[in-house]
Amino acid sequence: MPVITLMTDFGIKDGNVGVMKGVIWGITPDAQISDLSHKVQAQNIREAAYILGRSAPYFPQGTIHVVVVDPGVGTARRSMAARIGDGFYVGPDNGTLTVWLERTEAGNWPCEFVQLDQPKFWLPVVSHVFHGRDIFSPVAAHLARGVSLNELGSAFSDPVRLDIPKPVKTADGWRGEVVHIDHFGNLASNIRVEHLGEAFRQKEKIILRLNGTEVRGMVDTFGERPPGELVALLGSTGNLVLSVVNGSAASKLQAEVGNLVEAVLP
Amino acid sequence: MPVITLMTDFGIKDGNVGVMKGVIWGITPDAQISDLSHKVQAQNIREAAYILGRSAPYFPQGTIHVVVVDPGVGTARRSMAARIGDGFYVGPDNGTLTVWLERTEAGNWPCEFVQLDQPKFWLPVVSHVFHGRDIFSPVAAHLARGVSLNELGSAFSDPVRLDIPKPVKTADGWRGEVVHIDHFGNLASNIRVEHLGEAFRQKEKIILRLNGTEVRGMVDTFGERPPGELVALLGSTGNLVLSVVNGSAASKLQAEVGNLVEAVLP
Amino acid sequence: MPVITLMTDFGIKDGNVGVMKGVIWGITPDAQISDLSHKVQAQNIREAAYILGRSAPYFPQGTIHVVVVDPGVGTARRSMAARIGDGFYVGPDNGTLTVWLERTEAGNWPCEFVQLDQPKFWLPVVSHVFHGRDIFSPVAAHLARGVSLNELGSAFSDPVRLDIPKPVKTADGWRGEVVHIDHFGNLASNIRVEHLGEAFRQKEKIILRLNGTEVRGMVDTFGERPPGELVALLGSTGNLVLSVVNGSAASKLQAEVGNLVEAVLP
Repeated sequence: MPVITLMTDFGIKDGNVGVMKGVIWGITPDAQISDLSHKVQAQNIREAAYILGRSAPYFPQGTIHVVVVDPGVGTARRSMAARIGDGFYVGPDNGTLTVWLERTEAGNWPCEFVQLDQPKFWLPVVSHVFHGRDIFSPVAAHLARGVSLNELGSAFSDPVRLDIPKPVKTADGWRGEVVHIDHFGNLASNIRVEHLGEAFRQKEKIILRLNGTEVRGMVDTFGERPPGELVALLGSTGNLVLSVVNGSAASKLQAEVGNLVEAVLP
Repeated sequence: MPVITLMTDFGIKDGNVGVMKGVIWGITPDAQISDLSHKVQAQNIREAAYILGRSAPYFPQGTIHVVVVDPGVGTARRSMAARIGDGFYVGPDNGTLTVWLERTEAGNWPCEFVQLDQPKFWLPVVSHVFHGRDIFSPVAAHLARGVSLNELGSAFSDPVRLDIPKPVKTADGWRGEVVHIDHFGNLASNIRVEHLGEAFRQKEKIILRLNGTEVRGMVDTFGERPPGELVALLGSTGNLVLSVVNGSAASKLQAEVGNLVEAVLP
Repeated sequence: MPVITLMTDFGIKDGNVGVMKGVIWGITPDAQISDLSHKVQAQNIREAAYILGRSAPYFPQGTIHVVVVDPGVGTARRSMAARIGDGFYVGPDNGTLTVWLERTEAGNWPCEFVQLDQPKFWLPVVSHVFHGRDIFSPVAAHLARGVSLNELGSAFSDPVRLDIPKPVKTADGWRGEVVHIDHFGNLASNIRVEHLGEAFRQKEKIILRLNGTEVRGMVDTFGERPPGELVALLGSTGNLVLSVVNGSAASKLQAEVGNLVEAVLP
């Protein structure tokens, strides 16, 4: 049973996500379909890229990730499908796949890209404004039933890549930034476990700074400290995270995506 | 694998939608179930009718649409199931099916209606307040496993129909109204591509008016214009839509469902 | 096809719920997965317990309910799986199962509990902060494919139980409290149909009081009264509920979970 995930900025009110599932099941009736998120901020390709990059590795081999955060729908931007390691991406060629792609390439996994140019794998009528329904869902469904990438379109090698900010080495540690704020108000930075390196063995001596506030020492998990306390820890995918125990670090620190985060290592 | 969709005004917090799926899978374990929307405004049958009408055509043949926006639950209003073209409706007889039904009838597809009066296809205990769980979900599951409409209830011919507003011909075009505002704040009107007719070939000369604001010319898609600009275009199901590129036309124009929309044709 | 449900306080924005489904399908590809709720208030174990207790009975025999409202993740709190009657619970041992468990024990159904201590049924790498992904989802998937409770961990007999408030008999009826407020603003109390007993035959004479407001008589369903009227009725799982017809009793009465509810019986 092939797995397909859907991520969009459509919200869940208007029925459009359901319609994409209807189109998929019309072609591949046994597909398992999981929503990944439909609450991506409108037109926020960067947020979609971050969520995709950290989520895709947990899905079964062959999973097809359809992402439709697509302010350029109906313009000259390419429609694409890609093999990224042992999974697939289907969506606009607008950089959504960057985080996942860069990590996969770093592991020397194979990646390949095709521009979708075979309308026989699309709905018969294609609107100018909803390619998620008319092109990406049917293409994903055909991939799921065994159609190959090469049948779906023509190979190309230069997918659009976002300029994803990377942490910078400083005299005494790293300077990064907030890259995601989750439902709880936890602040994920782009400083990762691999940046902390050996220093992480002395994690109680690492100092974090954000918006003028300092946290001394990292913990393993929320429950080590009392509710309301600001803590630093590693998130579930290896990013350095600032959290308020049973509260919102985003509210407490008035933080936004892009705010600077400094780590001072022992 | 039969497909069942669920649309309600229940929200997604209380577990009631999950319970409906549990009831369905207890009867038809292999049903594919898609949420259509659970964010229909409370008791807003008209909104549900609009979403159902534009979504149903994209689902596979035989799909069963369960809609529970049901302020009259437990009163004398009928419970019903219907064949509407190549799909099915299950829910209260309160007009939810109107938009889908009218379009299907216009295409001369067969439609038939039964009043649900066979409790052997319901849960053993039926509450006064949650027929979505106790009647409609089990009936949909039985339909999905092959029970016929006629086994489920007694035929009738006069389902409740909403009075859906239709655009009116004016001296120089059409006067319609806003019928749906989506997650992005796009304003869908009931003026459709078939009303524009030949004039649509000169779409750059069509003038739209809403709440004292005028848009001159229609575009194909959002990306043709810069962010923040108000544009008019055809939505993905053929309705004339007013949008703000990467923004909210509803906010910009202080628009609500029911506001007048005028189209002046060249 | 085994059924697994997921309930969390994760929200639906960040992809974490989708990731849990990916992990499950990697182990048990044909699992039917239903979201129960991901809008449980953050860290509100009591709310999760209430939703689980009233929802679980409607799922097919053998359904596995994964609940991750887990402020103690990564601390010494036990991870557990349980058989509760003809269903299963997987999640932290923090009392989430209390309502369901107490009702099941009251019916003399078998219940058994194991502490999850067999890492071979978990993901290879277990984070300190996302056991929903790393332990509970894979354990649920293994249960779904036939692994027994005893293989998953060591039996124990004293799961954490919440102190669920019970209504108190008064001179002329019962005094309970609001235990859940749903999407519509309906106020569910812990006074149940079995407390009302014979008096319910004269339900038009029952008097309800909440926050200084009195409702005289109970109705069967919302549609018996005009919009805006405050009514008392039995909810779909037998709790005494205060509602405003087509409105919000929570707003009208400024009510919160924990507010006292009094029932005066004839």
